[in-house]
Amino acid sequence: MSPIKVGLLGLGVVGGGTWKVLTRNAEEIARRAGRRIEVSAIAVRDVEKARKLVGDQAQVCRDGFEVVRRPDIDIVVEIIGGDTLARELVMEAIARGKHVVTANKALLAKHGNEIFAAAHQKGVMVAFEAAVAGGIPIIKAIREGLTANRIQWLAGIINGTTNFILSEMRARGLSFNEVLAEAQRLGYAEADPTFDIEGVDAAHKLTLLASLAFGVPVQFDKAHIEGISSLAREDIVHAERLGYRIKLLGFTRRRNDGIELRVHPTLVPAERLLANVEGAMNAVLVSGDMVGPTLYYGQGAGELPTASAVVADLVDVTRLQTADPEHRVPYLAFQPDALDDTPILPIEEVRSSYYLRMRVLDRPGVLADIARILADVGISIGSMIQEPHGETEADIIFLTHEAREGDIDSALQRIGALAFVHSDVTRLRMEHLI
Amino acid sequence: MSPIKVGLLGLGVVGGGTWKVLTRNAEEIARRAGRRIEVSAIAVRDVEKARKLVGDQAQVCRDGFEVVRRPDIDIVVEIIGGDTLARELVMEAIARGKHVVTANKALLAKHGNEIFAAAHQKGVMVAFEAAVAGGIPIIKAIREGLTANRIQWLAGIINGTTNFILSEMRARGLSFNEVLAEAQRLGYAEADPTFDIEGVDAAHKLTLLASLAFGVPVQFDKAHIEGISSLAREDIVHAERLGYRIKLLGFTRRRNDGIELRVHPTLVPAERLLANVEGAMNAVLVSGDMVGPTLYYGQGAGELPTASAVVADLVDVTRLQTADPEHRVPYLAFQPDALDDTPILPIEEVRSSYYLRMRVLDRPGVLADIARILADVGISIGSMIQEPHGETEADIIFLTHEAREGDIDSALQRIGALAFVHSDVTRLRMEHLI
Repeated sequence: MSPIKVGLLGLGVVGGGTWKVLTRNAEEIARRAGRRIEVSAIAVRDVEKARKLVGDQAQVCRDGFEVVRRPDIDIVVEIIGGDTLARELVMEAIARGKHVVTANKALLAKHGNEIFAAAHQKGVMVAFEAAVAGGIPIIKAIREGLTANRIQWLAGIINGTTNFILSEMRARGLSFNEVLAEAQRLGYAEADPTFDIEGVDAAHKLTLLASLAFGVPVQFDKAHIEGISSLAREDIVHAERLGYRIKLLGFTRRRNDGIELRVHPTLVPAERLLANVEGAMNAVLVSGDMVGPTLYYGQGAGELPTASAVVADLVDVTRLQTADPEHRVPYLAFQPDALDDTPILPIEEVRSSYYLRMRVLDRPGVLADIARILADVGISIGSMIQEPHGETEADIIFLTHEAREGDIDSALQRIGALAFVHSDVTRLRMEHLI
Repeated sequence: MSPIKVGLLGLGVVGGGTWKVLTRNAEEIARRAGRRIEVSAIAVRDVEKARKLVGDQAQVCRDGFEVVRRPDIDIVVEIIGGDTLARELVMEAIARGKHVVTANKALLAKHGNEIFAAAHQKGVMVAFEAAVAGGIPIIKAIREGLTANRIQWLAGIINGTTNFILSEMRARGLSFNEVLAEAQRLGYAEADPTFDIEGVDAAHKLTLLASLAFGVPVQFDKAHIEGISSLAREDIVHAERLGYRIKLLGFTRRRNDGIELRVHPTLVPAERLLANVEGAMNAVLVSGDMVGPTLYYGQGAGELPTASAVVADLVDVTRLQTADPEHRVPYLAFQPDALDDTPILPIEEVRSSYYLRMRVLDRPGVLADIARILADVGISIGSMIQEPHGETEADIIFLTHEAREGDIDSALQRIGALAFVHSDVTRLRMEHLI
């Protein structure tokens, strides 16, 4: 069979990785796919640099549209990132009837609905395994492996940078800023780390996973997002004493009245596998009504792991090319006309357990007053620890049972107004993941 | 689109589960697959009992061949187990141009090559996600998710019964026989538990995984199999003190000179995720050259988890039905004409690290003599502990660095012949899984 012809848009970390994987494992890939997968054209900013990597085995040019418009290209791989030029190129590729493989979570989280609709109309595939959790075939697992299930919830460590930072803060007792500086030196965090540390990257990915799990359109703007930059070292220590680890989780759950979609630092029981995912590794726990909990673990970023996912998509697209479009795997796991409009819940409607820390005047009655306020809004306390701070103050930590976030908010407002509460109340969410 | 018609052979645990999953989640499955999946005929021993579950929604009969020969059946699901009648029925279904979904690892481990060859010739699919690790989509991950990789090795906890027994032995300090009796009472172990506890079931599954990972024919008869029935409680305790847990691992690795294919109790560093897979859960760790290590975890058995995998296969087969046969996912992950003949290595050629325990006379020179024998065959010692036993004896435990099994054998023969060695030498293998 003749080779499948691929056009690469971008030859950065993932693009270079894709070239390397296709070259180094060409034979193994052909043994599986039944035909060769060849990169015929590459669009890059620095043509000279690209030439050094690829020699004269592929056309190298500066203009992505030149690649997209080449009639002999079967599949366009978009790995330039961003959501302006990338969007135009992807839409143009689709308009020309090309299948698309992309690693661009920001693009799909923001413009996925438009892109999938256009692709559906043209009968082409858009595959994006590399957009979530790097080399872990999590999209395939949800979209194809768990089709028998009504998925109930999923929780993921889907940003390696923040997991590295949290792991180091815990293991070495360092502050966020100390570890961030080190992560930047080591290349685990970017010069401008905002997207990672503020949870935006994780939310892009979670948004896609939620759509795949529940069959709803992509709704990034409805996600609740909190990062780890204001997480205090002492909360990691307290959490540990209480039997928990703090992870930046993407968590999404389907309830009768809507879908929770949220990224935030989360206390997880220390004995859970997810709590033991360390360093830059990623893992996603998916709970289906028939299969129960399943977990997927691996490298969530990096040149070759991410390229592994890009190339797996290339093989998949090659295979399904000949299937009639109505039988292909749907973009968002559910048939386009079977997506539903279950609303994404506002954060006040979320139900979670909570970790609450506050500094108070150490005198009788304080605890009773705070407990009364919590009880008034129906929040019950699972456990409590108190630690003296200096001569006259104490730190109190409550772990609550599950409660509605809006009720926690109103309780915290009243607690914050008490004269004997000397600090802001630190509030972290806690998920038991059973 | 008209529904896909399925014939079920067997309505036991997995068959009943398949019926339940297809019924309970009919709508969710149709939202994904784009069409309904309907069970039209069922063959069972007890027709009356089956009628109670399925009512008159499907033909129920005693003769599997009646189901297989019904012209309107698109896919035959074989879940009767065993490898005689099941084999005949599967071969007949293939001969009649039906696709097959099976959960039968024994059948495929023994007759897979014949079955896949017949299916290839007729252009039909044979899907078997449920045959390995229950509801975990591990076959899909290897066959489709990791296609970009040259897979290097994989290690799996792929038998829930033995993992439950080992977990309980460790957690509660009980002996193998005590826990087995309890597992039988609880229904976690069968009345005749031989296939599970002697590692045969795990070896069936490992054989399939090795073929999928490396692209070699199924060769169950070449697998090295050791179970856990002779595992002593004290070895679990010693392992723990040394920082390891003992798991019944299926382990397969591709080397330049051949493939290791082995099931045996194995020491695994306690901090590895695989070491922390407890109870009846399953997990498989797969290492690819591009993606690095990836892990897949979930329920490896049970009615609904296993049925989740059967139904996922039904959706897959439904999808790929319309793809031309040359582009479908190959049975063993590699194109039938691209399988290779890398030999399975005999156990003497395996390389592993070892845990060696022996009781010796406690007097000067003993340790030196044993260490000398190990050194003579090139085995180096990683660590050693010694514990007095009574007045005059001691137990010595060595952890060796990686060595060739044949060299360990000859060293143990010489050690066993020493007058001051008062016991057989207990030998366990150890894998670091990095």
